[in-house]
Amino acid sequence: MQGAVIYGDRDIRFEDRPEPTIVEPTDAIINLPVTCICGSDLWPYRGVSAFPAGTPMGHEYCGFVEEVGRGVRSLRPGQFVIGSFFASDDTCPHCRHGFQTSCAQKTAVTGAQAPRLRVPLADGTLVATRETPDPDHMPSMLALSDVMGTGWFAADAANVKPGATVVVVGDGAVGLLGVLSAKQMGAERIIAMSRHEARQKLAREFGATDIVTERGDEGVDRIKQLTRGVGADSVLECVGTQEAMTQAIKSTRPGGSVGYVGVPHGVTLDGADLFFRHVRLLGGPAPVRRYLPQLIDLVLAGTINPGKVFDLVLPLDQVAEGYRAMDERRAIKTLLRP
Amino acid sequence: MQGAVIYGDRDIRFEDRPEPTIVEPTDAIINLPVTCICGSDLWPYRGVSAFPAGTPMGHEYCGFVEEVGRGVRSLRPGQFVIGSFFASDDTCPHCRHGFQTSCAQKTAVTGAQAPRLRVPLADGTLVATRETPDPDHMPSMLALSDVMGTGWFAADAANVKPGATVVVVGDGAVGLLGVLSAKQMGAERIIAMSRHEARQKLAREFGATDIVTERGDEGVDRIKQLTRGVGADSVLECVGTQEAMTQAIKSTRPGGSVGYVGVPHGVTLDGADLFFRHVRLLGGPAPVRRYLPQLIDLVLAGTINPGKVFDLVLPLDQVAEGYRAMDERRAIKTLLRP
Repeated sequence: MQGAVIYGDRDIRFEDRPEPTIVEPTDAIINLPVTCICGSDLWPYRGVSAFPAGTPMGHEYCGFVEEVGRGVRSLRPGQFVIGSFFASDDTCPHCRHGFQTSCAQKTAVTGAQAPRLRVPLADGTLVATRETPDPDHMPSMLALSDVMGTGWFAADAANVKPGATVVVVGDGAVGLLGVLSAKQMGAERIIAMSRHEARQKLAREFGATDIVTERGDEGVDRIKQLTRGVGADSVLECVGTQEAMTQAIKSTRPGGSVGYVGVPHGVTLDGADLFFRHVRLLGGPAPVRRYLPQLIDLVLAGTINPGKVFDLVLPLDQVAEGYRAMDERRAIKTLLRP
Repeated sequence: MQGAVIYGDRDIRFEDRPEPTIVEPTDAIINLPVTCICGSDLWPYRGVSAFPAGTPMGHEYCGFVEEVGRGVRSLRPGQFVIGSFFASDDTCPHCRHGFQTSCAQKTAVTGAQAPRLRVPLADGTLVATRETPDPDHMPSMLALSDVMGTGWFAADAANVKPGATVVVVGDGAVGLLGVLSAKQMGAERIIAMSRHEARQKLAREFGATDIVTERGDEGVDRIKQLTRGVGADSVLECVGTQEAMTQAIKSTRPGGSVGYVGVPHGVTLDGADLFFRHVRLLGGPAPVRRYLPQLIDLVLAGTINPGKVFDLVLPLDQVAEGYRAMDERRAIKTLLRP
């Protein structure tokens, strides 16, 4: 088969890769009707995170079970399944506490920008739908694998409650789905920080009540103005830079919470500053697995349509153009069809 | 009157100070039957925090209302009251959210190591008991003003729940009362980190089930051993140093919480480390005012006896010896009688 492989800065190639096979008895092989590019794929693409040349790319996936190892109990070929970017056993203490991305056996899933994928720990990792979703639901199902679950975790970690005032820092797909998540959790006011027209529009569609275009301390001042000097109850940090994190912390009211899901790159926090601000922090790789059953139901019921973040659809062999479009912010998120 | 005043490193003097008077119409003057020295008073005593020479010391207090300003509505002379180290209006949005130590009008109370004290924003700050507590309850009432409320906040911020496994870093009065608080909140297992025999004994009396004497990474390893590799659900950081904070974070299981109440001195946190550990953080100056009504009831009912942390009682004029005893760890906490 052919799939996406990274070789260096802005060097994504679509090339021959070995067909995935069952390696461990707990593996499953799945066939991917759709796949996509993640905002976090842009870190190695831009050379910010070092990946060995020749690393297969892609960690968001849903699809049909083709084959399972002899140790797999709960799945059978033909089922439609969704999993997370980290495989997890769903039985260790961390999984039982709902933090499957800290599973004692966690393994990164990679190579999903391809027609087929090996998923380790299949019983723990994959959630099967009751029926095969219709094609219209496919983009939303794929979004659940990472961006939607990550936006949901950001809102959950930021302790969004009915009636809350929420700020979302970051207008990438995760930030936009953070808006959608906050709306679902009953937030009354959702302030999206964005200076990009198409993203502002989607943010409003997902439930944003206000848009703030200012950044840094000016952005914080604007948030304070909009909240009568108080700050927000919950702030979702969906970028991962020092600027975004500082903006998030300063926008939060004392006793409020920051949920941060942007992978921190060079972010440091001053203990005394955090102390005197009374800001609660929780972040990390989103435990998407915890939320999958609930989010699948919301998609199938038509309550949420997270697939709207895909504003560019390309055949898989044009994956390199998909990266370029996202890197240049011409696309929010690229859907690829193998 | 005479009270304690700091002049420099380890230079506490008991000297003439002006009698407190009503300055603002919202002030009250209270008469202090007992007063004490806080672990945080040791930061300026040791020269770690810079205080101007001549600063009156002491911020923990309870006592009898002597006089109120004309703007005070809810208090009258003769009532027994307790307040927090920060005066607060108890009406601003931060107060209404229960974070009175971030009150929009917050003012540090100082000069309580004396027979009388001016308390600003008396209506918001002071909580009156229904009756005058008997003398046996005085030390516990005084403890509510800071150390007990701070230990309680540490446990609350660390999200202690019934059945939880809790670690307490720091065996000062606050850490010991953090143990007591965790016990009250239903923790099943409470691991106190201490290498000091008298403090270990009091920790056990307050509810500690295990004592760990190791520190740093060895201490973390021991916690991991005691929790079958998982880590603790809730960790109370009651010191304020980088070592203590690091130990607290590393002792927490993914998805668990650190409540930190030691005023951070030179503490920095690495965003990516915190992210991949999945640790929830909340700290700050304890909003003691929020907890006072509940804690007063627990003391009067005889359910808790936080006054046990006072293991040295001195007349107020020997305040300098009280500081020395705490600095040299000969005393956990010094009670002073004016």
